[in-house]
Amino acid sequence: MVRLVRAGLRWLPRFSLPTLGLRLRPMTTHPSIETSRLAEILRDARLRVESALGRFVPESLNGAWSNCPPRLAEAMRYSLMGGGKRLRPVLCLLAAEACGGDSENALPAACALEMVHTYSLIHDDLPAMDDDDLRRGRPTCHKAFDEATAILAGDGLLTLAFEVVARYTQPASAAADCVRALAEGAGPIGMVAGQMADLEAEGRDDATIEALEAIHRRKTGALLRASLKMGGIVAGANERVLQGLVDYGHAVGLAFQIIDDLLDVEGDETKLGKRVNKDSGLGKWTYPGLLGIPGSRARARALAEEAVAALAPLGERGTTLRTLAMDLLERDR
Amino acid sequence: MVRLVRAGLRWLPRFSLPTLGLRLRPMTTHPSIETSRLAEILRDARLRVESALGRFVPESLNGAWSNCPPRLAEAMRYSLMGGGKRLRPVLCLLAAEACGGDSENALPAACALEMVHTYSLIHDDLPAMDDDDLRRGRPTCHKAFDEATAILAGDGLLTLAFEVVARYTQPASAAADCVRALAEGAGPIGMVAGQMADLEAEGRDDATIEALEAIHRRKTGALLRASLKMGGIVAGANERVLQGLVDYGHAVGLAFQIIDDLLDVEGDETKLGKRVNKDSGLGKWTYPGLLGIPGSRARARALAEEAVAALAPLGERGTTLRTLAMDLLERDR
Repeated sequence: MVRLVRAGLRWLPRFSLPTLGLRLRPMTTHPSIETSRLAEILRDARLRVESALGRFVPESLNGAWSNCPPRLAEAMRYSLMGGGKRLRPVLCLLAAEACGGDSENALPAACALEMVHTYSLIHDDLPAMDDDDLRRGRPTCHKAFDEATAILAGDGLLTLAFEVVARYTQPASAAADCVRALAEGAGPIGMVAGQMADLEAEGRDDATIEALEAIHRRKTGALLRASLKMGGIVAGANERVLQGLVDYGHAVGLAFQIIDDLLDVEGDETKLGKRVNKDSGLGKWTYPGLLGIPGSRARARALAEEAVAALAPLGERGTTLRTLAMDLLERDR
Repeated sequence: MVRLVRAGLRWLPRFSLPTLGLRLRPMTTHPSIETSRLAEILRDARLRVESALGRFVPESLNGAWSNCPPRLAEAMRYSLMGGGKRLRPVLCLLAAEACGGDSENALPAACALEMVHTYSLIHDDLPAMDDDDLRRGRPTCHKAFDEATAILAGDGLLTLAFEVVARYTQPASAAADCVRALAEGAGPIGMVAGQMADLEAEGRDDATIEALEAIHRRKTGALLRASLKMGGIVAGANERVLQGLVDYGHAVGLAFQIIDDLLDVEGDETKLGKRVNKDSGLGKWTYPGLLGIPGSRARARALAEEAVAALAPLGERGTTLRTLAMDLLERDR
């Protein structure tokens, strides 16, 4: 049997002898999976995450949740269950699986990542910050509710994230390590630092590609790196594998941001569910602004290939994550 | 040798035979310590906490902290190192010692509690929330910096709190349990719920003492309960002792709030470092408003006695915490 498989971005023949459990492959980089199969894996992971998120912030406020004012819970759910790619939790689950772990045990960490991501969107959208009124195709939290409720919904999601990790991750050492990784990624040396640096850069005219990457390394990269690392921690991965995952997360994070910037210039507002061309209007530094559109595309591709290379310690088990890195280049929302 | 010691609020003789290492005491409730000795213990604990806080949010941004924009670190330190009673971390350290634990190991948890408390003050002071311009005798964070910086400084402190607990608390099971206790106390079934409920109650005229206590049980009580519990967890206390500590924290928390309300009516603005009579101006529910001043004093005293009783499982080791509960009634700032 000979099938075409995608290696990196090239289609290569794969020789498979399934009856012997052996595969003869040409001397290539790594095998890939079909785009349709990847989409299926991502959808399954996303649905598992969304189902778990719905349990962690329940609709019926019983038991301990009876202490939560309904409007607060509603605002948290409004933003948390408002769709989105669920990239961070999906990466966390895939990392756990790639390390041979039980992704069920990674589900609390995965959900915590999405809670932290959602809180950051709620706070970033506030009038005092980016002042956005549309997010994922719907009014932002402070528009749908009010500013005080939005601040508290963000605070609540951030705090709940740590409760969920600490309470449900096994063993306790993995729970503590995950809390640390999440906090480092999200906090004042990670995501919060990035948002601050981003605000400080607005309107300044001394943009360089290094300064821009220094922002994104923290603003989006730090939490993406944590997503991969937490999946590895839950699966009991060794230091070398964890470092590979972190390097992958770093490269994928920057690539993702470049595509985001490109979509803001070239994207379809309907598909994106948010306004386009807002970055330049806000005087924000962007990749297309600094590197041009072809230069940005080339940089994203180089980073995706860097991400693929970083997964060497995982061997063939890294196939899904590798394919995902290359597929990110094609995303249109 | 016969000394007078304070038991509860009564002075009783204590017969001590120090040479034999024996003490003969009358059949009383529990012994107490001198107010001056208590003040010394509290000051020592406060200074240990402040020194550790200064290390956790360093002035020199080296190593991993070089990722933190100076203005963000400055805002975090401005609010964190701005004085205050450090009640929560001190209670945490005292609880650890009362359970026979090493309070050094409780120091990260103690500092985390102060970070969470400080973040809550920064966010509560925001224009969209309580809109306060004075805190601990100085401009509030958003006045000294700006709103966006204040929101991020709060987010940063909240996140850092969890990093500190997870990273420095030993063993990992205690770290995970402390993270959970802190998050439950601070999050959407605890402190954040209380702040939301407080905002919702503003200006409503159907105040009852039950509704008011339901707010404070979450807004201030939940984090105080967590403070005691975390100290007990670090010291490896059993469930019965932990429950005693939590009950103590509950009663002390409410008593503390009543005194706070009384100080807002009767207090000295210079000593307090904040405006007085602002609660009634904001249409906030208060104990004096519902119970009158003598009724509020009586309720605070009953709660302090409840707190003392809750420490029965600790025996004599609970003396400092017991004395502290009664002394809270006398505070003037």
